[in-house]
Amino acid sequence: MTKKLKMADIAEALGGQLGGDGSFEVERVAHPADIRGPKDLVLATDKALLPLLEGSIVEAVIVSEGAQVPSSIKAYVEVGRSRVALSKLTKLFEEPVAVPKGIHPTVIIEEGAYVAPDVTIGAFSYIGAGAEIGVSTIIHPQVYVGPKAVIGAGSLIYAGVRIGARVKIGARAIIHFNASIGADGFSFVTPQMSSVETAKETGSVGAASNLELLRIASLGAVEIGEDVEIGANTSIDRGTIISTRIGNGTKIDNQVQIGHNVVVGENCMLCGRVGIAGSAVVGNRVVLGGAVGVADHVRIGDDSVAMGMSGIAGNIAPRSLVGGVPAKPRAKMIEDMRKLNRVTQLTEKLEVLTKRIEALEGEG
Amino acid sequence: MTKKLKMADIAEALGGQLGGDGSFEVERVAHPADIRGPKDLVLATDKALLPLLEGSIVEAVIVSEGAQVPSSIKAYVEVGRSRVALSKLTKLFEEPVAVPKGIHPTVIIEEGAYVAPDVTIGAFSYIGAGAEIGVSTIIHPQVYVGPKAVIGAGSLIYAGVRIGARVKIGARAIIHFNASIGADGFSFVTPQMSSVETAKETGSVGAASNLELLRIASLGAVEIGEDVEIGANTSIDRGTIISTRIGNGTKIDNQVQIGHNVVVGENCMLCGRVGIAGSAVVGNRVVLGGAVGVADHVRIGDDSVAMGMSGIAGNIAPRSLVGGVPAKPRAKMIEDMRKLNRVTQLTEKLEVLTKRIEALEGEG
Amino acid sequence: MTKKLKMADIAEALGGQLGGDGSFEVERVAHPADIRGPKDLVLATDKALLPLLEGSIVEAVIVSEGAQVPSSIKAYVEVGRSRVALSKLTKLFEEPVAVPKGIHPTVIIEEGAYVAPDVTIGAFSYIGAGAEIGVSTIIHPQVYVGPKAVIGAGSLIYAGVRIGARVKIGARAIIHFNASIGADGFSFVTPQMSSVETAKETGSVGAASNLELLRIASLGAVEIGEDVEIGANTSIDRGTIISTRIGNGTKIDNQVQIGHNVVVGENCMLCGRVGIAGSAVVGNRVVLGGAVGVADHVRIGDDSVAMGMSGIAGNIAPRSLVGGVPAKPRAKMIEDMRKLNRVTQLTEKLEVLTKRIEALEGEG
Repeated sequence: MTKKLKMADIAEALGGQLGGDGSFEVERVAHPADIRGPKDLVLATDKALLPLLEGSIVEAVIVSEGAQVPSSIKAYVEVGRSRVALSKLTKLFEEPVAVPKGIHPTVIIEEGAYVAPDVTIGAFSYIGAGAEIGVSTIIHPQVYVGPKAVIGAGSLIYAGVRIGARVKIGARAIIHFNASIGADGFSFVTPQMSSVETAKETGSVGAASNLELLRIASLGAVEIGEDVEIGANTSIDRGTIISTRIGNGTKIDNQVQIGHNVVVGENCMLCGRVGIAGSAVVGNRVVLGGAVGVADHVRIGDDSVAMGMSGIAGNIAPRSLVGGVPAKPRAKMIEDMRKLNRVTQLTEKLEVLTKRIEALEGEG
Repeated sequence: MTKKLKMADIAEALGGQLGGDGSFEVERVAHPADIRGPKDLVLATDKALLPLLEGSIVEAVIVSEGAQVPSSIKAYVEVGRSRVALSKLTKLFEEPVAVPKGIHPTVIIEEGAYVAPDVTIGAFSYIGAGAEIGVSTIIHPQVYVGPKAVIGAGSLIYAGVRIGARVKIGARAIIHFNASIGADGFSFVTPQMSSVETAKETGSVGAASNLELLRIASLGAVEIGEDVEIGANTSIDRGTIISTRIGNGTKIDNQVQIGHNVVVGENCMLCGRVGIAGSAVVGNRVVLGGAVGVADHVRIGDDSVAMGMSGIAGNIAPRSLVGGVPAKPRAKMIEDMRKLNRVTQLTEKLEVLTKRIEALEGEG
Repeated sequence: MTKKLKMADIAEALGGQLGGDGSFEVERVAHPADIRGPKDLVLATDKALLPLLEGSIVEAVIVSEGAQVPSSIKAYVEVGRSRVALSKLTKLFEEPVAVPKGIHPTVIIEEGAYVAPDVTIGAFSYIGAGAEIGVSTIIHPQVYVGPKAVIGAGSLIYAGVRIGARVKIGARAIIHFNASIGADGFSFVTPQMSSVETAKETGSVGAASNLELLRIASLGAVEIGEDVEIGANTSIDRGTIISTRIGNGTKIDNQVQIGHNVVVGENCMLCGRVGIAGSAVVGNRVVLGGAVGVADHVRIGDDSVAMGMSGIAGNIAPRSLVGGVPAKPRAKMIEDMRKLNRVTQLTEKLEVLTKRIEALEGEG
C-alpha cells in the first residue's frame, strides 16, 4: 500500500527545483510536528523550521525558493507558492479509499438503469429505474441514486449520499458522506396574505393568518456541472419548475443548504454552513465564507466575496467585498464600527462644551 | 410516464377562468425561460411576459386575471393569487418518485413490528422490533425505523431517514433524505457550578470548572403531529423525560436543529438552518427565517415572525416581528440603525457649536 | 421491558436522602406535566410543585433538600444539585435501543477487518478492509466503517453514521444518526493570488482571479479521544497532512461542522450548529454556544465560553467570555450597546446646548 516516490519525480510533478539526490525515495508526506522516520518528506516551506531539522532524522524536505537547506538533508525540492505545491504533492500521495472493484452482489439496480463499463458500486447501494452511471465512476456503499438520475463519468460518490430522481450530475463530481441532492424545495403559500407578506408590506404582523399552508410541489430537478465537489451533510433542493443549478468547477463545503431554484455560477467556493434561500442567483467565482446566509431572490455579482457569518439581504454588485448582517461593503462596516467608537468621544466633548457654555452664561 | 391534462380540467382544479379551447391538452408545466414544445403549459402570471409569447410556439398559458392574452395562444387559465395557483398546478403535475410496490425482499422487519396493508418499503430498509407503519405509507430504500417507533398512514419517508426508537409520527408526514428524528438530547451537567453558570451569574468565567461532564440520558421520545414535513439533513432530538413535540401542519426545512424538550406548535414554518435549543417553546403559526437561533427555555408567542439570521435570546410576545442578534422588535432594529447613522450628524453639529462657542468666547 | 426500582436503591444511586418507604417500587420517571399512574417517580425539585401533588395519585417524588413533602407521598428522595440527580436518575432508567445481538447475516466485513468479541453489528452495515472494532461495541444498522478505521471498545454507533478510512475513535464513543467522520477537508488554492487573499491584503477584491481552483487532497485522518459524543448530522473532516483531533471527554451536538486540521481539546462542549474552520485550535473545557463560528487558524484558550451565535475571528485568551460578531469580551459588548443607547441622549443634550448658545448669541 505504501507509495515510494523519487525526489526527482516529485520535483518534476511540483514544477520545483530539485536539490541533492534525485534518486532518494520517500514514502510519506510529513508535517514537521509529526515526523516518524527517514522516509518522511517533510513540509518545511516556513523558513523558520529549517534550522530545527539540522541533524534530525529528516533527510528529505520541501522548501521555499532560496531557502538555506541544512547539510543533513539528502534531497529537497524548492517550490514557489507553497499551497500550490501542497496541492500537487497531496495529489501524488493520495490513495483512493478502498472499495472492491465492480458491482457488489448486494447492489439493487432497477429496470432500465444504465451502468457504464468500469463502474464500481459498493454494498447496499441502490440505483433507481432508468438512472445512468457514467464510465469509471465509483459509488461507495449505501448510496441512493433515484430514478432517471444521471451521474457523469469519473465521479466519486461516498457512502450515504442521496441523489434524487432526475438529478443530473456532471463528470468528475466528488460527493461526500450523507449529502442530499434533490430533496423537494421548501415552498408553501397561504390562501390569503401570510404573516411574512403582511410584515413586508406594513412592518408588523397582522392578525393570525398562516392558518393553512399550501404546498408547492417541486417539478424541477437539480443540474450540477462538471468538476463540482459537494461536502458531507450538505443539501441541495430541486427546483419548482426549472432545475436548481450549480456551475462547473464550483466547490461546496459541508453542512451547506441550497434552496430551490437557486443558480450558482462556475468556480464558486461555498464554505461550511452557508445557506442560500430559494431563487437566489450567485455569479461566477463568488466566495461565501462560513455560515453566510443569502436571502431569497437576491443576486450576487461575479467575483464577490462575503465574509464569514454575513447575511446578504439585497443584491450585490460584481467584485464586492461584504460583511455583517445585513451585509454591507467592508468599508461601510469599518465606518460603522468607528461611528460607535466615536460616541464616547462625543460624550466627552459635549461635557466640555457644556462647561464652556456655563462659563459664558455665568459671565452674561 | 407523461401526464396529459386538458386545459378545462386544469382551470377547474385551479378554480380559475378558462379561456380558449378547453379540450387543448398539455403535458408539462414550463417556466418562460425553459420552453420546449407546443405541449408546454407556460406560467405567465407576470404580465410583462405575455407580449413576448406572441407568435411563439407556446399555445397554452396560465395568466393573471384580466391579462391581455396574445392571439396565438389556444388556451389559457386566468388565476388570482399566483402562488396559490402554482400550488395546485404543481400538485396536478407532480409524479411520485418511483419505488417498487410492496416490501422489498431485502427489508429486515424485526419481531413484533406491524406493517399495515398497502405499505411500500424499499431495499435495505430496517424496521425495528415492535414498530408500526400506517396504511399506504411509502418508505424509500435505506431507511431506519427504530424499535416501537410509529409512523402514521399515508406518510412518505425518503432514503436515509433515521427514525429513533419510540418516536411517533402522525399521518401524512413527508420526511426528506437523511433527516434524523430521535437522536439523544445534548444535555450534560457538571458536579459543581459550570463555566456557563458562573458566567451567567457573575459576567465572567471563573476557575477551570468543567472538569467532568455528566451525561443526562434521554428517556423521552419525539412526537410529531399530522401533515408535518421535515427537510433533508434536519435533526430533531428526543426529550429528557417527556417528548420533544412538533404540532400538526408544521413545515421544517433542511439542516434544521431542534433540541431536546422543545415544543413547536401548529402550522409553523422553520426555514433552513434554524436552530432551537433545549426546552424552548414555539407557539402556533410562528415563522422563523433562515438560520434563526432560539436560546434554550425561550418562549415565542403565536404568529410571531423572526427575520433571517436573528438570534432570539428572550421571550417574544405573540405577533411579534423581530430581527437581529439578540433579536428585538423590527422597529427597534431600525431605530438602532438610525442611531448609528446619527453619529456623523452629531459630530458635525458639535463642530459647528464649538465654533459658535469659540466666537462667543472671543467676544467676551 | 419495564424497569422496577426500589426507592431505597434510587436514593443510594443518587447519593440522596431517602424519606418514607424505601421498599416502594417505581417504574418510570415522570415530569409533573405528564403523570400517568402511581408507579411514576415524579421530579419535583421545584418546590412550587409540591403542594400541587397533595392528594394526587403521585406516591413517589424526587425533591430538593429540605422540601416540605405532602403527607400523601409514600416515598421520596431529597437531592442537592437537581440536574446532577437527573443525570444519575436518567442513567438508572435508560434502556439501550434494541438491536439483535451479534453480527447480522447481511453485514459485509471486508478482508482483514478485526471484530472483537461481544460486538453487535446491525443489518446492512459495512466494515471496510482492515478496520478494527473494539470489544462490546454496538454498531446499529446501515453504518459505514471505512478501511483501516478503528473504533474503541464499548462504543455505540447509531444508524447511518459514516466513519471514513483510517479514522481512529477512542473507547466509549457515542455517535448519533447520520454523523460524518472523515470526509475530505475543504481546501483549495488558486495558482495566483485568490480574491480572498487580495481582499485580506488590500481591503477590496481585485480583478477576476479564482479562474482555477486546485484541490488540496486530505492525507490525514481524524483522531477522536475516549468518551466523546458526536451528534446527529454532524461532520468532522480529515486533516491535510496530520489528523484533525478531538480530545477525551468532548461532547459535540447535532449539525456541527469541524474543518480539516482542527484541534479540539478535552471536555469541550460544542453546541448545535457550531462551525470551526480549518486549522483552528480550541483549548480544553471550552464551551461554544449554539451556531458559534470560529475562523480558520484561530486559537481559543482553555475554559473560554462563547455565547450563542457569536463569530470568533481572532485569538481568545483562556477563560474569556465572548459574544457578538466579531466576538469580543462580554463587557465590551455591553459597553457597545450602551454607546448606541447614548446617541439619543446626546442628540437631546445637543439640542439644549444649541438653544443655550442661541440665547447667548442673542444677548451678544
